[in-house]
Amino acid sequence: MKIAIDCLGGDNSPSANVEGALLALERFDDLTVVLYGEEESIKSELSGKQYPADRVEIVNSPEKVDGNDKPIDAIRLKKNSSMIKAVMDLRENEEIKALVSCGATGVLVGASILRIGRLEGIRRPAFCPILPTMSGGIVGVCDSGANIDVTPEQLRQYALMGTAYLKKAYGIENPRVALLNVGTEEEKGDDLRREAYKLLKEEKAVNFVGNMESRDLLSGKYDLVVCDGFSGNVLIKSTEGACLEMLKRLKKDVTSSFWNKIGALFMLKTVKKEKAFMDYRNYGGSVLLGLEKIVVKGHGSSNGVAVAKCIEQAYKTSVNGNLI
Amino acid sequence: MKIAIDCLGGDNSPSANVEGALLALERFDDLTVVLYGEEESIKSELSGKQYPADRVEIVNSPEKVDGNDKPIDAIRLKKNSSMIKAVMDLRENEEIKALVSCGATGVLVGASILRIGRLEGIRRPAFCPILPTMSGGIVGVCDSGANIDVTPEQLRQYALMGTAYLKKAYGIENPRVALLNVGTEEEKGDDLRREAYKLLKEEKAVNFVGNMESRDLLSGKYDLVVCDGFSGNVLIKSTEGACLEMLKRLKKDVTSSFWNKIGALFMLKTVKKEKAFMDYRNYGGSVLLGLEKIVVKGHGSSNGVAVAKCIEQAYKTSVNGNLI
Repeated sequence: MKIAIDCLGGDNSPSANVEGALLALERFDDLTVVLYGEEESIKSELSGKQYPADRVEIVNSPEKVDGNDKPIDAIRLKKNSSMIKAVMDLRENEEIKALVSCGATGVLVGASILRIGRLEGIRRPAFCPILPTMSGGIVGVCDSGANIDVTPEQLRQYALMGTAYLKKAYGIENPRVALLNVGTEEEKGDDLRREAYKLLKEEKAVNFVGNMESRDLLSGKYDLVVCDGFSGNVLIKSTEGACLEMLKRLKKDVTSSFWNKIGALFMLKTVKKEKAFMDYRNYGGSVLLGLEKIVVKGHGSSNGVAVAKCIEQAYKTSVNGNLI
Repeated sequence: MKIAIDCLGGDNSPSANVEGALLALERFDDLTVVLYGEEESIKSELSGKQYPADRVEIVNSPEKVDGNDKPIDAIRLKKNSSMIKAVMDLRENEEIKALVSCGATGVLVGASILRIGRLEGIRRPAFCPILPTMSGGIVGVCDSGANIDVTPEQLRQYALMGTAYLKKAYGIENPRVALLNVGTEEEKGDDLRREAYKLLKEEKAVNFVGNMESRDLLSGKYDLVVCDGFSGNVLIKSTEGACLEMLKRLKKDVTSSFWNKIGALFMLKTVKKEKAFMDYRNYGGSVLLGLEKIVVKGHGSSNGVAVAKCIEQAYKTSVNGNLI
């Protein structure tokens, strides 16, 4: 299995990207990583490190895509950028099964949609990031922002793709799928939600358990939540934001008085644990579902461990043939 | 100033509602409360308590509206319910300036829209709940669910109404208004967001500061966020939900080991403080903006203090004439 790694995307590139690739190589014996970026800087990152050289390939592609590029322009004008070159190779090279990038989301999605074929029956690919739940499990959210305007049929497709993904990459047997809505009752929401509810209820291949209110995202009662990309984006960012702000407040509190500081000494491990628990980097990136090959978008601020986690997601989702 | 209180709405009615009314009477010397509900049970709640009897009126209206009622049916068939009777009196009695209810949201909004006149130039009323920010201030979110399908022009109206509300009820001189979006750049989002961005930028009466990502809701950088009712609902419930789940996890952590328990002893005050900080009941209810008179929807689980806070919001918003 070959996986392409964009080594020019993200705040800590190329070191985090190269480090992540080497970590993933340790984990999977049949994995070969194809590193895209500036050949010299990739080589200098590799130098002095122990790794299986026969499972590392470098494709020199030193140009960099940025957030201001339009996908169509990037494809046309930045052919020698790490991201576009990797997307083109993913399309053309049978051996390469997946791509991991921490670069500009819009360009990555656009170029992937324009250049990689879609799975049969899927109208639009969608992101499915993974969050930790308070009961120790995970929950996927599909879509978190690839498509803002959607139809009920697309939401049904998200449920199918997300179900297949959670089974394959996380070994969840029969994922419980919910529809994000403003209330749990069947008739809640607008026409989109009511129509999607009906389709999901009828869909035999999906274990649909009804509407979910956003406050229950982390409850552990659901494995997958389907929603339009706008509200999915709001859902994930506000959940992450609120948890992090809460921890920040607690940290400030514990340094505000002598007695609290003493308490904090004892609770240090707990606070650390909770911080790690909420650290998105421990849960990998957002997999773009619906294309013939897997594309994983990592956070811009990913470190080596986070990139390795993204590669793991790409590996598990791509192994043994197509997603659905 | 007379304010109508629906004493049959909410999980703790009528005791919380009556208790809240009495607390509010202590606070505002020129306030008279008009209590709607079962006369006998209201009287028994009042009995034995010290209060200015000349500023308390009771309107016997013992029927109860519930979540399954359709607004139009409730208006027609439950004329003697506490909620509908209060809405009708709010419409017809000049002296009554506002209504506070913790009852069924859908019926309250529907009946208010159908029976109370709209402010000039306002297409649809919208909810504006208030959340605490991490910097110690507050932030309003308009709309949190009164209208799911909206136009750019409606979002502009939300900005105007919310600005007036924050000035009047919270004394914020020049509220910083943001548009909820999937990114901060001007061109982000769908047609609705891009068009609303333009309108808000041109609106001289609004201090528009640009797009806001949902993770920044509690940052203290904004005083008002405008959005469609669906994503506003997702935004608020996921923020509240995440904060509460986080505190639950911390509580579980601190009881999980001996050393943590010792730490928790020292940190007890901090944990309590944070819980109170996140307790929505300390921030009142959602004011329905856009009608000629003010309607405040309190949480279903409101206690007396929360009801008093709702009455305070109604009072401050109604004093000295119309909102805008």
